[in-house]
Amino acid sequence: MSWRAPVEDILFTLTAIAPGPGGEPAMERDDLVAILEEAAKFCEDRIDPLDRVSDTVGASWADGRVATPPGFADAYADWAAAGWNAVSQPEAFGGSGLPTAVGTATMEMLTSACMALSTLPVLSQGAADALEAHASEEIKAKYLPNLVAGTWTGTMNLTEPQAGSDLALLRTKAVPAGDGTYRITGSKIFITFGEHDLAENILHLVLARLPDAPAGVKGISLFLVPKVLVNDDGSLSERNDVVCASIEHKLGIHGSPTAVLVFGEKGGALGELIGLPNRGLEYMFTMMNHARLNVGLQGLAIAERAHQQAVAYARERVQGKPVGWSEAKVPPIVAHPDVARMLVSMKSRIEAMRGLLYAVAASGDRAHAHPDEAARKAAQFEVDLLVPVAKGWSTETGVDIASLGVQIHGGMGYIEETGAAQHLRDARITTIYEGTTAIQSNALVGRAVLRDGGRSVDAWLEAQGAVAAALSARPALAEIGAALSSALAATRAATAWLVEAASEDMRLPFAASVPYLMAFGTLAGGLQLGRAALAADAKITAGEDGDGWYAGRIAIAHAYCGQTLPRVEAEWATIRNSSAAVLAVDAGQL
Amino acid sequence: MSWRAPVEDILFTLTAIAPGPGGEPAMERDDLVAILEEAAKFCEDRIDPLDRVSDTVGASWADGRVATPPGFADAYADWAAAGWNAVSQPEAFGGSGLPTAVGTATMEMLTSACMALSTLPVLSQGAADALEAHASEEIKAKYLPNLVAGTWTGTMNLTEPQAGSDLALLRTKAVPAGDGTYRITGSKIFITFGEHDLAENILHLVLARLPDAPAGVKGISLFLVPKVLVNDDGSLSERNDVVCASIEHKLGIHGSPTAVLVFGEKGGALGELIGLPNRGLEYMFTMMNHARLNVGLQGLAIAERAHQQAVAYARERVQGKPVGWSEAKVPPIVAHPDVARMLVSMKSRIEAMRGLLYAVAASGDRAHAHPDEAARKAAQFEVDLLVPVAKGWSTETGVDIASLGVQIHGGMGYIEETGAAQHLRDARITTIYEGTTAIQSNALVGRAVLRDGGRSVDAWLEAQGAVAAALSARPALAEIGAALSSALAATRAATAWLVEAASEDMRLPFAASVPYLMAFGTLAGGLQLGRAALAADAKITAGEDGDGWYAGRIAIAHAYCGQTLPRVEAEWATIRNSSAAVLAVDAGQL
Repeated sequence: MSWRAPVEDILFTLTAIAPGPGGEPAMERDDLVAILEEAAKFCEDRIDPLDRVSDTVGASWADGRVATPPGFADAYADWAAAGWNAVSQPEAFGGSGLPTAVGTATMEMLTSACMALSTLPVLSQGAADALEAHASEEIKAKYLPNLVAGTWTGTMNLTEPQAGSDLALLRTKAVPAGDGTYRITGSKIFITFGEHDLAENILHLVLARLPDAPAGVKGISLFLVPKVLVNDDGSLSERNDVVCASIEHKLGIHGSPTAVLVFGEKGGALGELIGLPNRGLEYMFTMMNHARLNVGLQGLAIAERAHQQAVAYARERVQGKPVGWSEAKVPPIVAHPDVARMLVSMKSRIEAMRGLLYAVAASGDRAHAHPDEAARKAAQFEVDLLVPVAKGWSTETGVDIASLGVQIHGGMGYIEETGAAQHLRDARITTIYEGTTAIQSNALVGRAVLRDGGRSVDAWLEAQGAVAAALSARPALAEIGAALSSALAATRAATAWLVEAASEDMRLPFAASVPYLMAFGTLAGGLQLGRAALAADAKITAGEDGDGWYAGRIAIAHAYCGQTLPRVEAEWATIRNSSAAVLAVDAGQL
Repeated sequence: MSWRAPVEDILFTLTAIAPGPGGEPAMERDDLVAILEEAAKFCEDRIDPLDRVSDTVGASWADGRVATPPGFADAYADWAAAGWNAVSQPEAFGGSGLPTAVGTATMEMLTSACMALSTLPVLSQGAADALEAHASEEIKAKYLPNLVAGTWTGTMNLTEPQAGSDLALLRTKAVPAGDGTYRITGSKIFITFGEHDLAENILHLVLARLPDAPAGVKGISLFLVPKVLVNDDGSLSERNDVVCASIEHKLGIHGSPTAVLVFGEKGGALGELIGLPNRGLEYMFTMMNHARLNVGLQGLAIAERAHQQAVAYARERVQGKPVGWSEAKVPPIVAHPDVARMLVSMKSRIEAMRGLLYAVAASGDRAHAHPDEAARKAAQFEVDLLVPVAKGWSTETGVDIASLGVQIHGGMGYIEETGAAQHLRDARITTIYEGTTAIQSNALVGRAVLRDGGRSVDAWLEAQGAVAAALSARPALAEIGAALSSALAATRAATAWLVEAASEDMRLPFAASVPYLMAFGTLAGGLQLGRAALAADAKITAGEDGDGWYAGRIAIAHAYCGQTLPRVEAEWATIRNSSAAVLAVDAGQL
């Protein structure tokens, strides 16, 4: 099957849901269309053909070197040369300086086309964001232009075997060399594109402890450790003391090498301190929001690809006369009510995820660039609130949709050559890396809700009532408005419950946190579909029916309210009825 | 990790939930314990060590021959020699003649120990059931003893490339040879253990069309086509005209060869007609209930294995101080509320599935052997009603639980060597083969509900109110009773809706059928947990607290009511709110 970039859906989302930082369109519409179509063409022609070979050949390791799958090198070089690596990077370092929402669109396309390859620019962007925010001007000038251009790539070195979600346990050491640099020793695991053959240098951002550092997370500093040392004139010098000891044999994203890196076997890898000592974790968190948004985007992108493949199969495969079918010629299985049910569920959740993820990206743009300080602050609140929701919910949903994609193929879905199973295998990492769904839900409950007794979150939810009210005011959309109102009420009740429960037993809200995140995501995605329905309705009212395309947006919002939104009420019931019951089960009897 | 057969859980389920055909214990308790412990020992010692090699080496094909993974041959031979292949097979042909519920227990153990290998006896049992029910005495005498003993194995040859769920499209031909035998020509795909090196002969049960057969499913006959022809004295003769052209490269169960079989390349494979011409589909359906129950059991068995592995990891892995933890020594992650939430959700659904599957097996025993005809009839109704539910719901639940098993392992879960991902890959076939979840839901809605305007199903649901009432009468169990009452009411309302909707548009109930099946399964599993809670409560009242083990059963039932049972209400909301909305989405806009 051939994946096609959903340019029309993305354009509609960007214009209806994710405007520019001041509320105006992010860009001139013609420019936006041109960018989206060019990115679509590149991803369809050059990246999409790599997705199967990425899976079947994968990355391989020998003697410390990693070979990426055939075709990755040329495609990545051309991708970077065309500037796609730097759509939303600052112009000062060679980026295009476009809003993050637009960069989100091009990243979605790259990710759908080949998720394994897309993990490289995700990490490079994260590294660039961290350097831009926290490195000295000297370091920025020395490293950022090549990183932004994509001739060099970046990594995030957090995890160690004993330190995954809990970075307080990390042991990698950094010792001052006396000349302003540091010698790094230690081992890191799960380093995405920690070694590869696609660029001439790799900039490892490494969390490590200085000799006099406090224990725990307050004693972690951030270092830049290049694979190849860089001379002051920017030319490459000798190899640094870091080697790739192996790569992992994973369930999916086989083309994305997951490296074990060993620093300092020959006395210490040379590193430069980024920012101040012992602030490493804080610096990592500044780029975490963007990285998490990009992983949420992977949930969407894999779901989109899986859905397109399932639709194509369902439109071709003939198998049984559908119930209620009166014509003699048996139609393909898309006419079976249950196949339609699955495809509509996939499609409506995809549009809900797209709305949510792009809206969060647009909030990020607003938080940086809105002229009004209060608006910037409100936008930043929204980013902090919704990034864990968008990451957690979109990745869980992406896995579910990829699994439905297998199901629609029947027995063929279980055969690897069909490709449907690959999407499930690829998607399965997304609920784990960049913080598991539980970690996201802890951020949502601990940082957003409990921090101020639920007040800001409740106020935000109350404000969303305006979307429901606007829908309820239009007869054709009133059912959508009513469904969203109910879901809003349930989510507010759940929010109040978390606060109340915390005062009783602090474990209770954290036994409820994932159901709460799933309810919140289901609602937040539904609100975006509500906004999309309002925009579509306005188009229809203005006489632009787009051959039924806009009516289709409204039908999809209706279906979501019926199929998916009831989950909000169910999660709320689960929260209030089971959190104490779960803690009452003796762990010895599991 | 080492899997351990959950003998205690199985024994409790068999005694509390799945009694013998007359309501009495299925067997003397000591005999039952002895059988379960012996099967547990065999599966733990001999089968469990094969599970990883089954995945990593898999089955391989060369020149028409299939090699199974190392260790399969010895283990299978010893399994069959010990009589485990024939626990519930009739004594007349060498089986032990024990109730199916007991055979279900030994099959659960085999399946947890190595699902790939377990698919062989599942198919052999299905073939034996079909021959026993429909073949002539001569054929039975010639083939059944070896099939029951396991020295020969059996297959079901239904699927062809164009005929999967829709067998009306099948093209394989059978032509009378003039001597009472038939010549079979055609190709079959997806034939589990269609070729292998574990037995001296394979008995293929093949659906094919006679020359004068009516079109569609009413023109399908059933033939026995041995891989090696059998002389009248039972000795083996020459190879029949059937070859294995290839095996599939699948997402999981790599040790279970999935064959493409080509019949009649040299003029026609020799086959014997089973029963009457054109009754093949009906004959296949007689063994379908048992095969579907065994696939539902795969959902349970993989979930049990995935859960055990997750519990072991969660009890060992230390990562972060849990919220509300006051001691200095940081405990393993099992103490984190969200990890507990996942493990309890897995455990409670596992016990619910076990209760449901064993109860259905016991109903099957009752349908055959209860002294009272009305009781036999009621039991058969229950089998026909609950087999699609048990198959569909247990397999969907099994996939979800295997996925949670990956999640609990964090990043390690994505690494193949951990083994958690294998369970997800293995489980993923179960919602597809032996009829997809949609096919099960069509059977539930079309055959059980709509056949008589919902009357029998509603009466069955009403009768289950007795379980809820018994629970409500005990203060300690009243919450469980109330939750089940609500879920029963919602399911009855959904049943009435299906009937009403069918009169309006026959597509509506079939757009709602999978949500209905999932609601029904969630309820039916909950009812079994309710029965388990009553039995545990009786033990406690009688002064046997089992060191808190029985109290644990009640805690698990409580947790299920809070965590999982709200899904019934949510599915009912989805049914009434979305079925029409789904059909309203233009298929061109998916």
